[in-house]
Amino acid sequence: MRPQKLDRQSIENALSGLSGWTLRDDGEAILKTFKFKNFVEAFGFMTRSALHAEKLDHHPEWFNVYSKVDVTLSTHDAGGLTELDFKLAQLMDSVAV
Amino acid sequence: MRPQKLDRQSIENALSGLSGWTLRDDGEAILKTFKFKNFVEAFGFMTRSALHAEKLDHHPEWFNVYSKVDVTLSTHDAGGLTELDFKLAQLMDSVAV
Repeated sequence: MRPQKLDRQSIENALSGLSGWTLRDDGEAILKTFKFKNFVEAFGFMTRSALHAEKLDHHPEWFNVYSKVDVTLSTHDAGGLTELDFKLAQLMDSVAV
Repeated sequence: MRPQKLDRQSIENALSGLSGWTLRDDGEAILKTFKFKNFVEAFGFMTRSALHAEKLDHHPEWFNVYSKVDVTLSTHDAGGLTELDFKLAQLMDSVAV
Protein backbone atom coordinates (compact mmCIF):
# COMPACT_ATOMS: atom_id res chain seq x y z
CA MET A 1 0.00 0.00 0.00
CA ARG A 2 1.35 3.42 -0.91
CA PRO A 3 1.57 6.03 1.82
CA GLN A 4 -1.00 8.81 2.01
CA LYS A 5 -0.33 12.41 1.12
CA LEU A 6 0.76 14.34 4.20
CA ASP A 7 -1.05 17.46 5.36
CA ARG A 8 0.75 20.76 5.77
CA GLN A 9 1.33 20.36 9.49
CA SER A 10 2.87 16.91 9.09
CA ILE A 11 5.10 18.28 6.33
CA GLU A 12 6.29 21.15 8.53
CA ASN A 13 7.03 18.70 11.33
CA ALA A 14 8.93 16.36 9.05
CA LEU A 15 10.89 19.21 7.47
CA SER A 16 11.91 20.55 10.86
CA GLY A 17 13.72 17.26 11.47
CA LEU A 18 15.83 17.64 8.34
CA SER A 19 18.62 20.01 7.41
CA GLY A 20 18.88 21.90 4.13
CA TRP A 21 15.62 20.73 2.59
CA THR A 22 13.04 23.29 1.51
CA LEU A 23 9.43 23.00 0.49
CA ARG A 24 8.70 23.80 -3.17
CA ASP A 25 6.33 26.75 -3.68
CA ASP A 26 3.43 24.47 -4.60
CA GLY A 27 3.94 22.45 -1.40
CA GLU A 28 4.12 19.18 -3.35
CA ALA A 29 7.85 18.50 -3.27
CA ILE A 30 10.95 19.04 -1.17
CA LEU A 31 14.22 20.26 -2.64
CA LYS A 32 17.88 20.19 -1.67
CA THR A 33 21.15 20.97 -3.42
CA PHE A 34 24.04 18.74 -2.38
CA LYS A 35 27.57 19.99 -3.05
CA PHE A 36 30.65 17.82 -3.10
CA LYS A 37 34.37 18.17 -3.77
CA ASN A 38 34.28 16.72 -7.25
CA PHE A 39 32.38 14.45 -9.63
CA VAL A 40 33.56 11.21 -8.04
CA GLU A 41 32.11 12.24 -4.68
CA ALA A 42 28.90 13.56 -6.24
CA PHE A 43 28.35 10.41 -8.25
CA GLY A 44 29.29 8.24 -5.28
CA PHE A 45 26.49 9.96 -3.38
CA MET A 46 24.12 9.35 -6.28
CA THR A 47 25.04 5.67 -6.39
CA ARG A 48 24.44 5.16 -2.68
CA SER A 49 21.18 7.08 -2.95
CA ALA A 50 20.12 5.06 -5.99
CA LEU A 51 20.44 1.80 -4.06
CA HIS A 52 18.28 3.17 -1.25
CA ALA A 53 15.76 4.56 -3.74
CA GLU A 54 15.42 1.27 -5.55
CA LYS A 55 15.01 -0.60 -2.27
CA LEU A 56 12.27 1.83 -1.18
CA ASP A 57 10.77 1.68 -4.67
CA HIS A 58 10.72 5.45 -4.47
CA HIS A 59 12.96 7.47 -6.75
CA PRO A 60 14.28 11.01 -6.81
CA GLU A 61 14.23 13.56 -9.59
CA TRP A 62 17.77 14.82 -9.72
CA PHE A 63 20.07 16.97 -11.76
CA ASN A 64 23.84 16.62 -11.63
CA VAL A 65 26.54 18.79 -13.04
CA TYR A 66 30.08 17.96 -11.88
CA SER A 67 30.15 18.28 -8.07
CA LYS A 68 26.56 19.45 -7.58
CA VAL A 69 23.36 17.42 -7.27
CA ASP A 70 19.94 19.10 -7.19
CA VAL A 71 17.35 16.76 -5.72
CA THR A 72 13.54 16.98 -5.88
CA LEU A 73 11.44 14.51 -3.91
CA SER A 74 7.71 14.05 -4.39
CA THR A 75 5.25 11.16 -4.54
CA HIS A 76 3.51 11.43 -7.91
CA ASP A 77 1.02 8.65 -7.12
CA ALA A 78 -0.16 10.60 -4.11
CA GLY A 79 -0.06 14.02 -5.77
CA GLY A 80 2.23 15.46 -3.13
CA LEU A 81 4.52 14.59 -0.25
CA THR A 82 4.32 11.35 1.69
CA GLU A 83 6.39 9.62 4.35
CA LEU A 84 8.41 8.01 1.56
CA ASP A 85 9.84 11.36 0.55
CA PHE A 86 11.03 12.09 4.05
CA LYS A 87 12.43 8.59 4.43
CA LEU A 88 14.41 8.99 1.20
CA ALA A 89 15.52 12.50 2.22
CA GLN A 90 16.93 11.12 5.49
CA LEU A 91 18.71 8.31 3.68
CA MET A 92 20.20 10.75 1.15
CA ASP A 93 21.41 12.96 3.98
CA SER A 94 22.96 9.95 5.68
CA VAL A 95 24.93 8.93 2.59
CA ALA A 96 26.02 12.48 1.71
CA VAL A 97 28.50 12.76 4.55
CA MET B 1 45.71 20.55 -23.37
CA ARG B 2 41.97 21.09 -23.69
CA PRO B 3 40.39 20.67 -27.12
CA GLN B 4 39.42 23.73 -29.16
CA LYS B 5 35.87 24.84 -29.75
CA LEU B 6 34.52 23.34 -32.97
CA ASP B 7 33.12 25.48 -35.77
CA ARG B 8 29.59 25.01 -37.06
CA GLN B 9 30.60 22.81 -39.98
CA SER B 10 32.58 20.45 -37.77
CA ILE B 11 29.65 20.26 -35.38
CA GLU B 12 27.24 19.38 -38.18
CA ASN B 13 29.62 16.68 -39.39
CA ALA B 14 30.06 15.22 -35.93
CA LEU B 15 26.30 15.30 -35.25
CA SER B 16 25.56 13.49 -38.50
CA GLY B 17 27.57 10.54 -37.17
CA LEU B 18 25.40 10.27 -34.06
CA SER B 19 21.82 9.21 -33.53
CA GLY B 20 19.27 11.07 -31.44
CA TRP B 21 21.47 14.00 -30.44
CA THR B 22 20.33 17.52 -31.26
CA LEU B 23 22.08 20.85 -31.17
CA ARG B 24 20.84 23.28 -28.54
CA ASP B 25 19.44 26.54 -29.95
CA ASP B 26 22.52 28.52 -28.95
CA GLY B 27 24.77 26.00 -30.73
CA GLU B 28 26.90 25.50 -27.62
CA ALA B 29 25.64 22.13 -26.43
CA ILE B 30 24.20 18.86 -27.66
CA LEU B 31 21.18 17.20 -26.06
CA LYS B 32 19.68 13.73 -25.91
CA THR B 33 16.97 12.04 -23.89
CA PHE B 34 17.66 8.41 -23.09
CA LYS B 35 14.72 6.21 -22.12
CA PHE B 36 14.98 2.88 -20.36
CA LYS B 37 12.67 0.22 -18.96
CA ASN B 38 13.04 1.24 -15.35
CA PHE B 39 15.25 3.00 -12.81
CA VAL B 40 17.75 0.16 -12.53
CA GLU B 41 18.47 0.33 -16.25
CA ALA B 42 18.56 4.12 -16.29
CA PHE B 43 20.94 4.29 -13.35
CA GLY B 44 23.04 1.46 -14.78
CA PHE B 45 23.49 3.62 -17.88
CA MET B 46 24.42 6.58 -15.71
CA THR B 47 26.99 4.54 -13.81
CA ARG B 48 28.66 3.28 -16.96
CA SER B 49 28.61 6.80 -18.40
CA ALA B 50 30.03 8.24 -15.19
CA LEU B 51 33.07 5.97 -15.38
CA HIS B 52 33.73 7.07 -18.95
CA ALA B 53 33.17 10.72 -18.05
CA GLU B 54 35.61 10.58 -15.16
CA LYS B 55 38.21 8.86 -17.32
CA LEU B 56 37.83 11.54 -20.01
CA ASP B 57 37.80 14.21 -17.30
CA HIS B 58 34.75 15.54 -19.08
CA HIS B 59 31.37 15.38 -17.40
CA PRO B 60 27.76 15.59 -18.49
CA GLU B 61 24.95 17.72 -17.18
CA TRP B 62 22.13 15.30 -16.68
CA PHE B 63 18.68 15.04 -15.21
CA ASN B 64 17.14 11.73 -14.21
CA VAL B 65 13.64 10.86 -13.22
CA TYR B 66 12.87 7.14 -12.94
CA SER B 67 13.57 5.58 -16.37
CA LYS B 68 14.50 8.78 -18.23
CA VAL B 69 17.85 10.56 -18.45
CA ASP B 70 18.16 13.98 -20.15
CA VAL B 71 21.76 14.67 -21.09
CA THR B 72 23.41 17.97 -22.04
CA LEU B 73 27.01 17.97 -23.22
CA SER B 74 29.11 21.10 -23.60
CA THR B 75 32.68 22.17 -22.87
CA HIS B 76 32.44 25.12 -20.53
CA ASP B 77 36.18 25.86 -20.65
CA ALA B 78 35.93 26.27 -24.42
CA GLY B 79 32.62 28.12 -24.40
CA GLY B 80 30.96 25.62 -26.69
CA LEU B 81 31.30 22.18 -28.24
CA THR B 82 34.59 20.34 -28.60
CA GLU B 83 35.68 16.87 -29.63
CA LEU B 84 35.33 15.80 -26.02
CA ASP B 85 31.55 16.27 -26.18
CA PHE B 86 31.26 14.06 -29.23
CA LYS B 87 33.57 11.47 -27.72
CA LEU B 88 31.45 11.33 -24.57
CA ALA B 89 28.24 11.25 -26.65
CA GLN B 90 29.53 8.20 -28.53
CA LEU B 91 30.52 6.48 -25.31
CA MET B 92 27.11 7.19 -23.76
CA ASP B 93 25.39 5.78 -26.84
CA SER B 94 27.57 2.69 -26.62
CA VAL B 95 26.66 2.00 -23.00
CA ALA B 96 22.94 2.75 -23.46
CA VAL B 97 22.20 -0.44 -25.35
